[in-house]
Amino acid sequence: MTRKSRANDQPQGFTHLSPGGQARMVDVSAKQVSRRTASAEAWVQVGAKIAERLQEAGGLAKGNVLETARLAGIMAAKRTAELIPMCHPLAIDAVELTAEVLEKRVRLVAAVTCEGRTGVEMEAMTAAAVAALTVYDMVKSAGKGVEIGPVRLLEKSGGRSGHWRREDS
Amino acid sequence: MTRKSRANDQPQGFTHLSPGGQARMVDVSAKQVSRRTASAEAWVQVGAKIAERLQEAGGLAKGNVLETARLAGIMAAKRTAELIPMCHPLAIDAVELTAEVLEKRVRLVAAVTCEGRTGVEMEAMTAAAVAALTVYDMVKSAGKGVEIGPVRLLEKSGGRSGHWRREDS
Amino acid sequence: MTRKSRANDQPQGFTHLSPGGQARMVDVSAKQVSRRTASAEAWVQVGAKIAERLQEAGGLAKGNVLETARLAGIMAAKRTAELIPMCHPLAIDAVELTAEVLEKRVRLVAAVTCEGRTGVEMEAMTAAAVAALTVYDMVKSAGKGVEIGPVRLLEKSGGRSGHWRREDS
Amino acid sequence: MTRKSRANDQPQGFTHLSPGGQARMVDVSAKQVSRRTASAEAWVQVGAKIAERLQEAGGLAKGNVLETARLAGIMAAKRTAELIPMCHPLAIDAVELTAEVLEKRVRLVAAVTCEGRTGVEMEAMTAAAVAALTVYDMVKSAGKGVEIGPVRLLEKSGGRSGHWRREDS
Amino acid sequence: MTRKSRANDQPQGFTHLSPGGQARMVDVSAKQVSRRTASAEAWVQVGAKIAERLQEAGGLAKGNVLETARLAGIMAAKRTAELIPMCHPLAIDAVELTAEVLEKRVRLVAAVTCEGRTGVEMEAMTAAAVAALTVYDMVKSAGKGVEIGPVRLLEKSGGRSGHWRREDS
Amino acid sequence: MTRKSRANDQPQGFTHLSPGGQARMVDVSAKQVSRRTASAEAWVQVGAKIAERLQEAGGLAKGNVLETARLAGIMAAKRTAELIPMCHPLAIDAVELTAEVLEKRVRLVAAVTCEGRTGVEMEAMTAAAVAALTVYDMVKSAGKGVEIGPVRLLEKSGGRSGHWRREDS
Repeated sequence: MTRKSRANDQPQGFTHLSPGGQARMVDVSAKQVSRRTASAEAWVQVGAKIAERLQEAGGLAKGNVLETARLAGIMAAKRTAELIPMCHPLAIDAVELTAEVLEKRVRLVAAVTCEGRTGVEMEAMTAAAVAALTVYDMVKSAGKGVEIGPVRLLEKSGGRSGHWRREDS
Repeated sequence: MTRKSRANDQPQGFTHLSPGGQARMVDVSAKQVSRRTASAEAWVQVGAKIAERLQEAGGLAKGNVLETARLAGIMAAKRTAELIPMCHPLAIDAVELTAEVLEKRVRLVAAVTCEGRTGVEMEAMTAAAVAALTVYDMVKSAGKGVEIGPVRLLEKSGGRSGHWRREDS
Repeated sequence: MTRKSRANDQPQGFTHLSPGGQARMVDVSAKQVSRRTASAEAWVQVGAKIAERLQEAGGLAKGNVLETARLAGIMAAKRTAELIPMCHPLAIDAVELTAEVLEKRVRLVAAVTCEGRTGVEMEAMTAAAVAALTVYDMVKSAGKGVEIGPVRLLEKSGGRSGHWRREDS
Repeated sequence: MTRKSRANDQPQGFTHLSPGGQARMVDVSAKQVSRRTASAEAWVQVGAKIAERLQEAGGLAKGNVLETARLAGIMAAKRTAELIPMCHPLAIDAVELTAEVLEKRVRLVAAVTCEGRTGVEMEAMTAAAVAALTVYDMVKSAGKGVEIGPVRLLEKSGGRSGHWRREDS
Repeated sequence: MTRKSRANDQPQGFTHLSPGGQARMVDVSAKQVSRRTASAEAWVQVGAKIAERLQEAGGLAKGNVLETARLAGIMAAKRTAELIPMCHPLAIDAVELTAEVLEKRVRLVAAVTCEGRTGVEMEAMTAAAVAALTVYDMVKSAGKGVEIGPVRLLEKSGGRSGHWRREDS
Repeated sequence: MTRKSRANDQPQGFTHLSPGGQARMVDVSAKQVSRRTASAEAWVQVGAKIAERLQEAGGLAKGNVLETARLAGIMAAKRTAELIPMCHPLAIDAVELTAEVLEKRVRLVAAVTCEGRTGVEMEAMTAAAVAALTVYDMVKSAGKGVEIGPVRLLEKSGGRSGHWRREDS
């Protein structure tokens, strides 16, 4: 039972692949516990008609579509390790999810915090993506052609790689 | 206990909202059982460098990144109703998920079939999205700036609304 | 592999116990598929102070406490068979959950429909109970002593036992 | 990505609501890790007839109804964060669940321990409630009118708020 | 979106591999719905000392070890499609699980029934295996060297392949 | 709420049974946090014909059967506490799973690491067993009579009981 996590034992910088090319869960046991944060955004291109209908349907209706999406995203963050095969289970300290309608799009931003040996980047991405899927589900009866994207990382901190922020964000 | 699912009792065509504006699971008990299919695609914008590295890492490595994503997507399709609050649990008959590297992008296409009272659109969208999140997770150590999107429906059949196909697909 | 589900092979009318007294999942394969409905209510005794604060916090705040509870209950209905050991997995057609503040109590009513070989009584009870637990969680920071109960069946229909309604409901 | 958890930024003392009234998972990252315990009870009002039948069915039968309920409650404690939207995932150190028939009622008491940044009150409440739902499921074939309640906290310790015990317990 | 399930489009008789060699969920939508049953057994080689201790610990203790294993197996049967990537979600009609101590071994037999388009072989295997893992967990503190196996199918019926029974069973 | 975990309060050395003989989750809160590792193996007796077919089907096919099993095992390790009733939820740091075809058998070895108050023995056993069930599922269409076993611990370290290694391994 020998497991090493040297920086250079994976092909071409893919730490999720073993030297033999097999998918693996990275061994994080030698990493320091530190405060980790990450935030990610997901956009839903609902189109002008649905955005308008969301407004017309009244504050409560719009609120409930967005609130359902927010809750689904928060709950999904907690299940990231069940969905993404190589993710570690993490004791998340906080998930914050905001949702807003911007002209003909809905923007979902998820921010996740934890104190651990590995980052929460996938938790933030998963929360944003599932929130976006939920918006899609809630509005799809009102019109065709809704698309999700982009879903992307905005910011990340903690661990050896330090702080990173998307330039255009 | 009176539940009706009249076409016009929801605000502005949002069947997932009750007349009072509350999120709800649509009552499908009056719908016909029919064969339902749906397919959706998700793109991961990995960039030229990672796409190149995937190729360089050898067939096995590339295969395993894509195979891990395919499996994650197939398994996620089966858990759609756990993730998306208003989705019905469905006895899925088939999930097919293909993955390929196209220049600097990875394309994931999920096709889902079931025999039931409601469609499998969300199952296909969820499978494609989770497969894309998995590709993201598998390659993120090799470079920053990867983005997911678009995630969108390609085709849908079955039920009262009949066959629909994205025009540009 | 011989399994029988005779009406009289369980001790003292407990169909969930085998003749030998062991817990078992009742074999429903010989039962007719029929439309099944059930509704259940759960009360949360929040007290006058919290009820007042819920009102003061404004429509949105009160709405979001109740909406969070409603979603949690709907999602829990779909997971009943994971929580209650002897429950059958069911393809639920609809879950409706209403929530309201009545003086110093919150009332949650869950109604579930499915077409199957066994009833949805436990799905309605579980949805109402988990919604009540969620209200409890959402208000517990504002005051001690909140209690849940009663949680009880209101009405049930379908299957051999026919229609039943709580007398005082 | 700015997240604050000031004591006074929530409406009317509801820490699970943001200043804007939206449901949120409280950020516990600034809290001290400490030993946390909580215990809760749930009652099932089975009535005299079912209580009698439980006794008549013999020690094994009664034991198995209660044992099934105990296991379901213990397993549910571990899934609290999946069921209750704003709960944090916790690494529980112990769950103890006792069950007894007291005249015409069944009493379930759950005690949960963990070392963490947030309490285990919801874990104890959820364990007791799911154990009660399981008793309900196991006895419902033997008579109508069974009710669950009250479900309530008995005791709680750890964290800034210190030790609390229900006065009449 | 063309999916075929011809008998000869998979390599070397592996229906779970596509012609291209990729893992896939078999498309069962063209299959007939029929009554399906399967039973499987799992043995736990506990050794003479632990078997003796189980007896000495008294009927209740032995009963509770076996009862815990039985419940875990029944609950696992319902989650087979979450654990085994290419399994279809199934609406199981019955799970029966028996457990007995035979000299220095524990034998667990799971029998599963459903009405569907695909068999319940994996559900029976998974139920027996998880019950065996639970026995292992419950007795491992009392002695080293416990082993699980064999885990194997005993009987299967329904569907095109008809009835099959292990010869030596 | 008094919970003690004295070494001698359980019947006949079964720490998972209370003095009264009831199944319980052992209270680990008094144990030291330490690095814990465990590895376990599971064999699948596929027989000569299937082993040969796996080879004939080509590297990709064999690779994908084994890769699917590896992923299923890794994902199952993370869900051990959901499957095995008395297991504690653990923040696993690493899961490594290897799979190889040896003549007419497939061997799966799972190694798990965590930093915690209780061992990862069940996580390793569960990962190996579910990987074996997945191999079984992937090859069962190609021939009858496949059996799983033995599934057993190879090595274990950490905690008060120190290092243990199977003699014949």
